[in-house]
Amino acid sequence: MDKIIRFGVSIDPDLLEKFDRMMKKKGYANRSEAIRDIIRDHLVIEHIKDPSAEVIGTLTMIYDHHTGTLVDRLLEIQHDHYQEILTTTHIHIDHNTCLEVLVLQGKIQHIQELADTIKALKGIKHGELVVTQHSLN
Amino acid sequence: MDKIIRFGVSIDPDLLEKFDRMMKKKGYANRSEAIRDIIRDHLVIEHIKDPSAEVIGTLTMIYDHHTGTLVDRLLEIQHDHYQEILTTTHIHIDHNTCLEVLVLQGKIQHIQELADTIKALKGIKHGELVVTQHSLN
Amino acid sequence: MDKIIRFGVSIDPDLLEKFDRMMKKKGYANRSEAIRDIIRDHLVIEHIKDPSAEVIGTLTMIYDHHTGTLVDRLLEIQHDHYQEILTTTHIHIDHNTCLEVLVLQGKIQHIQELADTIKALKGIKHGELVVTQHSLN
Amino acid sequence: MDKIIRFGVSIDPDLLEKFDRMMKKKGYANRSEAIRDIIRDHLVIEHIKDPSAEVIGTLTMIYDHHTGTLVDRLLEIQHDHYQEILTTTHIHIDHNTCLEVLVLQGKIQHIQELADTIKALKGIKHGELVVTQHSLN
Repeated sequence: MDKIIRFGVSIDPDLLEKFDRMMKKKGYANRSEAIRDIIRDHLVIEHIKDPSAEVIGTLTMIYDHHTGTLVDRLLEIQHDHYQEILTTTHIHIDHNTCLEVLVLQGKIQHIQELADTIKALKGIKHGELVVTQHSLN
Repeated sequence: MDKIIRFGVSIDPDLLEKFDRMMKKKGYANRSEAIRDIIRDHLVIEHIKDPSAEVIGTLTMIYDHHTGTLVDRLLEIQHDHYQEILTTTHIHIDHNTCLEVLVLQGKIQHIQELADTIKALKGIKHGELVVTQHSLN
Repeated sequence: MDKIIRFGVSIDPDLLEKFDRMMKKKGYANRSEAIRDIIRDHLVIEHIKDPSAEVIGTLTMIYDHHTGTLVDRLLEIQHDHYQEILTTTHIHIDHNTCLEVLVLQGKIQHIQELADTIKALKGIKHGELVVTQHSLN
Repeated sequence: MDKIIRFGVSIDPDLLEKFDRMMKKKGYANRSEAIRDIIRDHLVIEHIKDPSAEVIGTLTMIYDHHTGTLVDRLLEIQHDHYQEILTTTHIHIDHNTCLEVLVLQGKIQHIQELADTIKALKGIKHGELVVTQHSLN
């Protein structure tokens, strides 16, 4: 990221004004930073359409740790996929409820399958997977 | 849209190269056109977060016209909301199945409620609402 | 759809109560109708993950008909894809702005490409594609 | 979750067959578990439409730790919002790239603003926010 180049964008003033307003509302310091961000967002969306794409992601799940053998099953599944799970963070929400975040890396298809397997377990109340590219300029 | 202005974007060459590749794949003739499009996409996403925003939208639905009094109910509901429904297009998919597209205009909250009411009817197999801004530069 | 069968769902009372509340808010007459709808929603989401899936969809677009040769280009592209475009609905939003809805049928990949081509045209301010399955029980 | 009740769902056999197929593919042991999960998914979607809703969420971000004073700015912002950030997990992706996951709790509006502020920082290449309810039965 040492070399930086510059290109011009033609735009009508009304659209630019609306963009500047949104940019300021979101806290961007300058247009280039905002444009680069929305370019990257679009590249990520395109990238993850390919089921064989290498991605990095997080699975956020909520569960009740009192549910049968859930905790054992979760540990078992996670060890079966240790190569795709970079780390696990656990938060004690209340007496019964756990929030766990898995950071995942691998082919999107495998990540999706792992997420499906975990979400299907009895006691997992909600699971939400997000994936992104790890090689973003 | 008579006057056009120009602004510069600083970017590192790798990100620009990826953007150019996506742009070409999608058929854009030049960068300005692609940048304007992703700017408008983001403005639309922000606009429709406000429940009182004026929007234009389409409700696409699939239904079986043999289901009880569905056709009568649909006509009744549509006439109750005639001010929000600009037009209706009907396609005969097969002997049983209809596809109907309503073009809607009004406050996003009302549009959403109308869509919910229709989707809840017995015989409506699927309904998908999209909304956008009608005043886009 | 002549024969109807019945299956039981075990659920804790708190979750059922929340579900009933949402169901009523959305206007569902009974739980079976609401359950069938969310089952179909999930099937559609799974179906359209396959790029070769046959789908039906709508492309909603906003454009300024004064933009260069846009209207000619749009007609040309639509005739090139006449087999995938079932019908077109056009609404005159104001002096400059048009809303056009294409009803599309075909492989999701082709539908997506057609939508990308149209969205990339100069003068198309926004385009939103929704796809669904046409064979839903 | 000590008491469990049961309700019946009327459905035509074709739709049930498709549902069973999807359920098996995703690894569900029984229909009740699958139905409860899609009910919870829908409740979460409804819940987070309210900007004042209390949620729990994760912000996953990718950044280059060599970018100017980014690391200092990130720490500053996180300390300003220490009441909404439950924990932070950091992964060293490669020599330049970091992945950081913030676990967040609070009103959805504040969580969204915090995410916007962080995503607007120079050097943050991508940020993805997911939110959910923490009180799910």
